[in-house]
Amino acid sequence: MNQIVNRKIVLASRPVGEPDPSNFDLVEEDVPGIKDGQVLVRNLYLSLDPYMRGRMSDAKSYAEPVAIGAVMIGATVGEVVRSKSPEIVEGETVLGFGGWQDYAVLDGNDVQKIEQAVVPISTALGVLGMPGMTAYTGMKNIGKPKSGETVVVAAASGAVGSVVGQIAQFEGARAVGIAGSEEKSRFVVEELGFDACVNHKAADFAQQLAAACPDGVDVYFENVGGQVFQAVLPLLNDFARIPVCGLIAHYNATEAPKGPDMTAVLMRQVLVKRLTLRGFIVWDFAEQEKEAKEALAGWIVEGRLKYKEHVTKGLENAPGALIELLKGGNFGKAVVKIG
Amino acid sequence: MNQIVNRKIVLASRPVGEPDPSNFDLVEEDVPGIKDGQVLVRNLYLSLDPYMRGRMSDAKSYAEPVAIGAVMIGATVGEVVRSKSPEIVEGETVLGFGGWQDYAVLDGNDVQKIEQAVVPISTALGVLGMPGMTAYTGMKNIGKPKSGETVVVAAASGAVGSVVGQIAQFEGARAVGIAGSEEKSRFVVEELGFDACVNHKAADFAQQLAAACPDGVDVYFENVGGQVFQAVLPLLNDFARIPVCGLIAHYNATEAPKGPDMTAVLMRQVLVKRLTLRGFIVWDFAEQEKEAKEALAGWIVEGRLKYKEHVTKGLENAPGALIELLKGGNFGKAVVKIG
Repeated sequence: MNQIVNRKIVLASRPVGEPDPSNFDLVEEDVPGIKDGQVLVRNLYLSLDPYMRGRMSDAKSYAEPVAIGAVMIGATVGEVVRSKSPEIVEGETVLGFGGWQDYAVLDGNDVQKIEQAVVPISTALGVLGMPGMTAYTGMKNIGKPKSGETVVVAAASGAVGSVVGQIAQFEGARAVGIAGSEEKSRFVVEELGFDACVNHKAADFAQQLAAACPDGVDVYFENVGGQVFQAVLPLLNDFARIPVCGLIAHYNATEAPKGPDMTAVLMRQVLVKRLTLRGFIVWDFAEQEKEAKEALAGWIVEGRLKYKEHVTKGLENAPGALIELLKGGNFGKAVVKIG
Repeated sequence: MNQIVNRKIVLASRPVGEPDPSNFDLVEEDVPGIKDGQVLVRNLYLSLDPYMRGRMSDAKSYAEPVAIGAVMIGATVGEVVRSKSPEIVEGETVLGFGGWQDYAVLDGNDVQKIEQAVVPISTALGVLGMPGMTAYTGMKNIGKPKSGETVVVAAASGAVGSVVGQIAQFEGARAVGIAGSEEKSRFVVEELGFDACVNHKAADFAQQLAAACPDGVDVYFENVGGQVFQAVLPLLNDFARIPVCGLIAHYNATEAPKGPDMTAVLMRQVLVKRLTLRGFIVWDFAEQEKEAKEALAGWIVEGRLKYKEHVTKGLENAPGALIELLKGGNFGKAVVKIG
């Protein structure tokens, strides 16, 4: 194997504000050998997700930053081309954190086999992977929509938001999406079946959102932050729940926005309306992984749960695709088809 | 009875910012007659509480504002001097919303009998009343302190805060108070038995607070807001809980504080540390009233739960006492002894 070349994209420098291509380097190396217990995986699909912006910074967070010069982290689906793990056979398809590269050496215990099913293997990075689980666990444990309630989710055509709204409807709630273009909004209503979707770039966005939520908002699934959150806040009903799993609008920010300081306004809403805001990441509910994946797969097989992927071809195009993702340039779950 | 005069304090005008005495009027009227089912109560103690500032405004909240010209609302303990209620006998001591006046006509179903016990009847307005229940239900349902955790509460010598910290200790947690003077801080440690207490008016308040919480903060019981909250925020541990029952630092505010807008900072903390912020008012847990009162009374009888009252004499002094309360001028649960 030693003559095979591995291309990998490493973090060249930490971005200030919006990342740009100079923050990444593509380097080549020989594919390394593997030790007992390890597998060599040829990556087929790489997941691109908003959390990656956080790992490029060295601000304290729930995970370690990527070191300068280290390969960018990321979930991957790939084919096992060599195995020294007793449980994994060459040729199997596995999910793991293979990173932004052609080949990954992983511990056999750190990969999950993907059974060849009726859905494409790339869904293990999206609707059946971390984003789908984020939607499922956030709604089950925090959002808890009840029949007749209204659920609002931003980035509604994205990997998490698209699942959130559909789960809301499975529970009998009204699903209202927020998306970044008229085209995405149409897709969310016509293809995903949301009850309504509003374009947050419209001049009268706040009014449109209020009109789409005549009975107020009982669950706001927060994955965006910023002005979208400010527009939802006055619409929240008493006892509304706000699962917070992401704040993509803030990730490229270099300083706090100009005043006035609206914290007091937010806190007053929390008090007066008895809101629950709760941050979470999907691994806080790791014990629900099996349940979540079975439920999501079941809905897909039944034809009830729709999803859309935004596929970028070529590892070398991953940096540009992440930069676009952070600006809302993707349309559906962002993945990179490698090789 | 008709020749008896009732003095009552009515809302004369809505305050802008800090209330002043001109917002109140003391008016006299004959004590009205009572109808079937009603009781006439001679008020003995009136509770003063931060929420009253909200009722003086007409901003949308969880309760209706007091109308201009109407008697100021408030919980009272008094003696039944006349009864047309089959269940209530003249001479009984009752808790009710009698308002800022010498005599109140109340529906017999809206008052609770107070059994003459080993504690003063005024405690029905404080440690055994709404403030004590607020502490109890906020800790039980939201704060959920575990042994070895650190609980921080502001207004620690006040009606709610003093109970919060002691309950924290009953659960094996470390109790750290925040108070508005050195004298109050000493009282909180020496008399109430908190593990530490910090004066928020000290120049190095944030550093002192950090030093008092070497293992971070797991529960922040929020009844103050403003700069105190900003000092606690960086100390919060992963999965910290923040019951929000009051924001007294904001109640007199006329506009949002100057920027920068720290909402994004708060939301990032919610996400990264997976915080739970949840607003509540005591009546959200009305079904726990009996349990709460029994637990609190039990702790008092055992000599474990300490409390302090700040008694102002004379109904006519109630406006000044509320104005002081909103500035932190009270030292213990604020009550007015009427007559």
